[in-house]
Amino acid sequence: MKKARFTVGDDDSVKTGHVEGERLYVEGTEYSFEEVTFLPPCRPTKIVCIGLNYRDHADESGLPVPENPLIFLKPCSALIGHRDAIRFPAQSSRVDFEGELALVIGRRCSAVGTDTAFDYIGGYTILNDVTARDIQLLESKMTRAKGFDTFAPCGPWIVESLDPSNLKIETLLNGELRQNSSTAELIFSIPTIISFVSNVMTLEPGDIVATGTPAGVGPMQVGDVVEVRIEGIGSLTNIVR
Amino acid sequence: MKKARFTVGDDDSVKTGHVEGERLYVEGTEYSFEEVTFLPPCRPTKIVCIGLNYRDHADESGLPVPENPLIFLKPCSALIGHRDAIRFPAQSSRVDFEGELALVIGRRCSAVGTDTAFDYIGGYTILNDVTARDIQLLESKMTRAKGFDTFAPCGPWIVESLDPSNLKIETLLNGELRQNSSTAELIFSIPTIISFVSNVMTLEPGDIVATGTPAGVGPMQVGDVVEVRIEGIGSLTNIVR
Repeated sequence: MKKARFTVGDDDSVKTGHVEGERLYVEGTEYSFEEVTFLPPCRPTKIVCIGLNYRDHADESGLPVPENPLIFLKPCSALIGHRDAIRFPAQSSRVDFEGELALVIGRRCSAVGTDTAFDYIGGYTILNDVTARDIQLLESKMTRAKGFDTFAPCGPWIVESLDPSNLKIETLLNGELRQNSSTAELIFSIPTIISFVSNVMTLEPGDIVATGTPAGVGPMQVGDVVEVRIEGIGSLTNIVR
Repeated sequence: MKKARFTVGDDDSVKTGHVEGERLYVEGTEYSFEEVTFLPPCRPTKIVCIGLNYRDHADESGLPVPENPLIFLKPCSALIGHRDAIRFPAQSSRVDFEGELALVIGRRCSAVGTDTAFDYIGGYTILNDVTARDIQLLESKMTRAKGFDTFAPCGPWIVESLDPSNLKIETLLNGELRQNSSTAELIFSIPTIISFVSNVMTLEPGDIVATGTPAGVGPMQVGDVVEVRIEGIGSLTNIVR
């Protein structure tokens, strides 16, 4: 089951429906993708991200693979949906894409063991961990560089049942393949991540845990179209404005 | 006006009342401090903190004063109220107090100028930016070190009208004075902070912006009582468990 959140036309009321092919269904009513505005597929209380969780991305960043998962937060105010615009902030001159598999928490949890971690995952979606790379390198901190409004494109929907252990993950910039890996290459596995994070902070339903980005991150320019594709989920597409 | 959120006895329903002396008032009903459980005084969508915003604390940390405000996030899952317990996590062997003046956003805002910043502040409260110092030094990142459940004691209430420019701020550990400064010593002023943060991320009503801690931070042990006092607001007291 693929579940999307969206609005239709000028009506602000938020609809939750399921996706089949190129159509959205809400209690018998059918909508085409063309007539809806996609919203972020869940309403998290926090977005937790894992840094340097693919060996090839750690290598391209010139950083050692961390001993423990390296976690940081993006503010929920950064969320936008599929087809919405990433805004290039005046404070930066280099804004990068980072395609990532994102876990959506299904049930409140704290101090989960790796053996039961999957019980607390409600589904899977895609997150583009947009990063002002110049600010990140300047401050060697994540929050401002990754926290601008529109810097967390997410969606297009949540897939509830999926084996996430070996999914092709690709990012295309203006149609050109730039990231090309598999979730099989994750350094810290999904159960390890859920266990590690939930032993620090309680996770709530709808919370997003982004699992890290593979090699190939790079800058975007105003007017670019960025697309993150994950096998079994779909394609998250955004323009840069 | 001082506004508190609390519950009474075994009743889980959240009350919002105003404080006069040692009493809480909700539509004619009066409660003593003894009979209530204080909750965090607002319900933020994010907690933004400013690092190294007192010169003496930058000095004691051996770090230069940053050119711009250094921002980081604490997850809302870390919030606890006045008199609630800070939990010492198994992953750390050094957990520090950091007493701070916290701004509570009153109105949604984005890209605010310093000249109108005060229009968006709904009130003032106290936050203890509890920090697992060993983890912070190990990772040189903030999120895990400052993100554990119970690491954001906040309250006891919100004071709506206050001149925050020169307030005595003190932290006492087991009754002994450990931090002793004034908000007049802030490096980046309150309007500068609001302007800087809101030019990165949209702030929502109830969001907390903690303004940084002065010199004197130090470790707490299980059983300790930590109290942060700010002139014109009150006293936020928590035990370590």
